[in-house]
Amino acid sequence: MQLNSGILFKLENIVGQSFVFTDEETRNHYGHDETEDYVFPPHVVVKPSSAKEIAEILKIANQYKIPVVPIGARTGLSGGALSVQGGIGLSMERFNKILSIDEQNLQVITEPGVITQVLREAVSEKGLFYPVDPSSMGSCFIGGNVAENAGGARAVKYGVTKDYVLNLEVVLPTGDIIWTGANTLKNSTGYNLTQLMVGSEGTLGIVTKIVLKLLSKNTHNVLMLVPFYKANEACEAVSAIFRAGIVPSALEFMERDAIDWALEFIEGLSVQVKPEIQAHLLIEVDGNYPEILMVDAEKIMTVVEQFQIDDILFADTEDEKKALWKMRRSIAEAVKANSIYKEEDTVVPRYELPKLLEGIKSIGKKYGFKSVCYGHAGDGNLHVNIIKGTLSDQEWNTEITKGIREIFELTVSLNGTLSGEHGIGYVQKEYMDIAFSKTHLELMERIKFVFDPNGILNPGKILP
Amino acid sequence: MQLNSGILFKLENIVGQSFVFTDEETRNHYGHDETEDYVFPPHVVVKPSSAKEIAEILKIANQYKIPVVPIGARTGLSGGALSVQGGIGLSMERFNKILSIDEQNLQVITEPGVITQVLREAVSEKGLFYPVDPSSMGSCFIGGNVAENAGGARAVKYGVTKDYVLNLEVVLPTGDIIWTGANTLKNSTGYNLTQLMVGSEGTLGIVTKIVLKLLSKNTHNVLMLVPFYKANEACEAVSAIFRAGIVPSALEFMERDAIDWALEFIEGLSVQVKPEIQAHLLIEVDGNYPEILMVDAEKIMTVVEQFQIDDILFADTEDEKKALWKMRRSIAEAVKANSIYKEEDTVVPRYELPKLLEGIKSIGKKYGFKSVCYGHAGDGNLHVNIIKGTLSDQEWNTEITKGIREIFELTVSLNGTLSGEHGIGYVQKEYMDIAFSKTHLELMERIKFVFDPNGILNPGKILP
Repeated sequence: MQLNSGILFKLENIVGQSFVFTDEETRNHYGHDETEDYVFPPHVVVKPSSAKEIAEILKIANQYKIPVVPIGARTGLSGGALSVQGGIGLSMERFNKILSIDEQNLQVITEPGVITQVLREAVSEKGLFYPVDPSSMGSCFIGGNVAENAGGARAVKYGVTKDYVLNLEVVLPTGDIIWTGANTLKNSTGYNLTQLMVGSEGTLGIVTKIVLKLLSKNTHNVLMLVPFYKANEACEAVSAIFRAGIVPSALEFMERDAIDWALEFIEGLSVQVKPEIQAHLLIEVDGNYPEILMVDAEKIMTVVEQFQIDDILFADTEDEKKALWKMRRSIAEAVKANSIYKEEDTVVPRYELPKLLEGIKSIGKKYGFKSVCYGHAGDGNLHVNIIKGTLSDQEWNTEITKGIREIFELTVSLNGTLSGEHGIGYVQKEYMDIAFSKTHLELMERIKFVFDPNGILNPGKILP
Repeated sequence: MQLNSGILFKLENIVGQSFVFTDEETRNHYGHDETEDYVFPPHVVVKPSSAKEIAEILKIANQYKIPVVPIGARTGLSGGALSVQGGIGLSMERFNKILSIDEQNLQVITEPGVITQVLREAVSEKGLFYPVDPSSMGSCFIGGNVAENAGGARAVKYGVTKDYVLNLEVVLPTGDIIWTGANTLKNSTGYNLTQLMVGSEGTLGIVTKIVLKLLSKNTHNVLMLVPFYKANEACEAVSAIFRAGIVPSALEFMERDAIDWALEFIEGLSVQVKPEIQAHLLIEVDGNYPEILMVDAEKIMTVVEQFQIDDILFADTEDEKKALWKMRRSIAEAVKANSIYKEEDTVVPRYELPKLLEGIKSIGKKYGFKSVCYGHAGDGNLHVNIIKGTLSDQEWNTEITKGIREIFELTVSLNGTLSGEHGIGYVQKEYMDIAFSKTHLELMERIKFVFDPNGILNPGKILP
């Protein structure tokens, strides 16, 4: 595929010359995200500022069958924003306005290029709460969260991105612009295109406006770090906490290595961990009544004390809470700093976590790899970081793939699936046959065709 | 379309002779639901008992292009289960088993023909909670709830059916059987066919197994009935309660007539209502700590006391609570007993409720009809019962349709949509152009075609 000067000229006419880039540096910059070390630069980077401009771009791309990849903040972990077939890299960074915060209806209308943390803070200033908090929230775009159906630590109580998206403005490859639903909490009016669009990774349309449901802010929380002598017992404690009638606002699992690497990675954090500790649970409860939170915390203590644990660390101050969360959120970066790795985003019903963890370790032994596991255990969502360490490139590129396949087969056999919150994107699509039958994959392909008959939108993603 | 004896013989071979019915009585019985007075009997009623049997039936229907309408408990309010083009009426009543209640993962796997209340009680015995409670829950099927994305009084806090469906077993017209997702709380693995199926009213596939998320049961609640001198102030109070940071577990609006008719309809209910009262709010808060519920109730009182209200009635005993809920849940039947009527299921962002109510009344004046409004105001979901009363058949069939169109235009202009929880089915499909552009409707048609290229599944529904 070649982008000739005629097409570049048309693109410049649409967005203005200063928002079309063909230099190598810019193309490379927009050619990677946080997925391993992949770089797939687009042929041209275009930075539109309105749905109308995107509609014009898509019409041209559709006519000339040029791939178009929507690019957010490039924090994705499945390669969703990589221009694997080149074409037009559609940077959404100029869609950076929060259009309205509706305090009467507890809703926000935002453009997709707003940083999630910025959105959270803006609504927080009005006493409102957008709960979805991916680890990358300080830099990721809300549009990327919609594309990948991002989760985060608070999903266990508050749900994931899809649970907050009420309505989307979407540009289709034809240049038509639709709203997928209505700005209502309930909707039984035709097929749910809103939920079809969420998590579709930019393969069905380009999202240009997002209507999100908001909550009232909870005023208090209690945060505790529980060290377990046995990792499988930490996993068992997860479902036991729910069975005791508690719904924590966060319930995170961290293997020993994860916490060690994070502590090395961040300066000035002082958490003492005994050598015998295999795993930690980071547990938070939130609400408006501190005395009730203490009752909940005591119930949690009663549950975890049935297992072999060391002293529970309660975060007494806001600074201590921030430090613990920083530790948790730094794990991905810490792993990255330590070794080449592949990250899988397994998810199972939460009671199956001990079986999943045990299985992963035994698959690791079989194929000779070390893994560092952590994640949103309350949702049954375990991030598996497979470490290259001293493996040869040959082993890394062949044997490990077999091992990953076995991990996903195990996940699916436990009634789970391939990705809880990162999406399939480029790197997991070769495993889709494990989770879906041929019939099912064909349905997805045909749905893709309904929206995008020429296959221009983010080609080479999701479907094998 | 004629069902010849050869096809009947094949159907008998699949499900057994005793589960195929062509007599007029049975056909008429399965030819109506709770939607006005419509009767559209299928040519034949078939009662399969397994997904495999349904697969065989669909293969035949697909080959001979025979309509197939899945029929649940026929409590629907949009005509979703009516065999408007005849064909095979596929009664799901033999799919009446709860297959497993998973106390470890807080999930239930059920067949679709289980009565919603039966399911709620079965999980409740294990200390678990399935919160979705449509007014018809004592007789409707959970499968019908999935088909229409049913809501109910507790949706305001707990969400609607779609928020609990994790995974569905679905038979496609080809006879293929797929699971749409995984039994996990989070899922970013390909297009969300689960949510596409929920609310698709049996037009994309036949659901044969349902995996639902469950919650832990809350132990306490407080219920109060607040009489308002002005109906618009009752509507205004709704969003004010949320803005005060309260999330009630139910927040129901009832116009004066609704409550009067319900009180007439039910024997032995003694609620005294002053003549000047125009509307009531029925408000519930729930949780595990009675003292906190009292704090919440006091906050609610502070809010509603800013409006012109009469004495608040607190339900002190379980019997009083039951009586108030019985009153609320009997409104639909009471209206039905009073007059021929049409029910619309409007939904708007909740702060727009006063404008919606006012607009409905003024449209009623213009077209000369009386309306009785009530519903799940906390969700902005207002059921509008348009009363025939003394209108001529001529007026009823022409003028009223224009009036309904204006109501929906108003709803959509307030960022709302046609149906909050009843579905579009047969009776609202002619209004779909108000909510959706031609492009959007074409997308829905093409999605329908992906699943059902011969158009055999519940034809004549949803799409105009």
